[in-house]
Amino acid sequence: MTVSPRPLVAEEFSLFGDVVEALDDRIVDINQGTSQRFHDLARISIDSDGGRPLANIFRASPYPRPLTLTMMEKHPLGSQLFMPLQAHDYLVAVALPGPLVLAEDVNVFLARGHQGVNFHPGVWHHPLLVLVEQQDFIVIDRGGPGDNLVEAGLEKPVIVTLS
Amino acid sequence: MTVSPRPLVAEEFSLFGDVVEALDDRIVDINQGTSQRFHDLARISIDSDGGRPLANIFRASPYPRPLTLTMMEKHPLGSQLFMPLQAHDYLVAVALPGPLVLAEDVNVFLARGHQGVNFHPGVWHHPLLVLVEQQDFIVIDRGGPGDNLVEAGLEKPVIVTLS
Repeated sequence: MTVSPRPLVAEEFSLFGDVVEALDDRIVDINQGTSQRFHDLARISIDSDGGRPLANIFRASPYPRPLTLTMMEKHPLGSQLFMPLQAHDYLVAVALPGPLVLAEDVNVFLARGHQGVNFHPGVWHHPLLVLVEQQDFIVIDRGGPGDNLVEAGLEKPVIVTLS
Repeated sequence: MTVSPRPLVAEEFSLFGDVVEALDDRIVDINQGTSQRFHDLARISIDSDGGRPLANIFRASPYPRPLTLTMMEKHPLGSQLFMPLQAHDYLVAVALPGPLVLAEDVNVFLARGHQGVNFHPGVWHHPLLVLVEQQDFIVIDRGGPGDNLVEAGLEKPVIVTLS
């Protein structure tokens, strides 16, 4: 099956996680007005059973074309925040939490280079789908004991068409 | 008094916090080799007395010249991580934790655009010192009840000289 990406907007993405971006309704002036703080943009969830927040950098290469998704993964014990460090657009593929994930459940969003995403715990997602060149992301996720990675193959491929 | 910035290297900064950068000794290959994960780059410390990690974006304007520091601040209840979203160099001014901070205690580092910093709880630091143009940072710090901001004036100004 084929899917076209939709624009990444917070309201449509809210079932899967947060869109991390500097929008005017989150502004707080700080530091005597020399800085603006866009406040509390993501629900960082880490289990209290030995989990701790980790900071990492992910360096992703462009995903091969045609863009064909054959698997998804999820992290049941913690959220996972991705913020691009170079402002290139990229794709985000997600599906609602649950024991299984089917091709028809997959939603694909086109994130702009200034937008990050924070997947809520258990949300199925595809690994980074970078489009144009090597791109780094700072990633805030969960470290600690326990099995926090579940991978599942899709029963049929999802091909993402870019207009 | 005047201070010249030193290069930001992890070993020299370790008394104050972490340098968040993609160095080869932290590489883990993930996602069938399509991504590299630079793993666990910062000690994110949040008090367990109602604290929670927050994600924010700080948007800073260039600091007025001559670069004159007259105050410092600290956050006793949590660490604070800054990662630049545009790769411009910036300055980091820090001093060791303690009840007081004096001008002679202030260390100034020149961070490159690909480097973030994570201040450990209680480390005195100056608000963002951006050099060339408006610059955004993703900031991971602490939310929750309690007084997590202490500000202190310096008894004499610290003037930062850029070569």
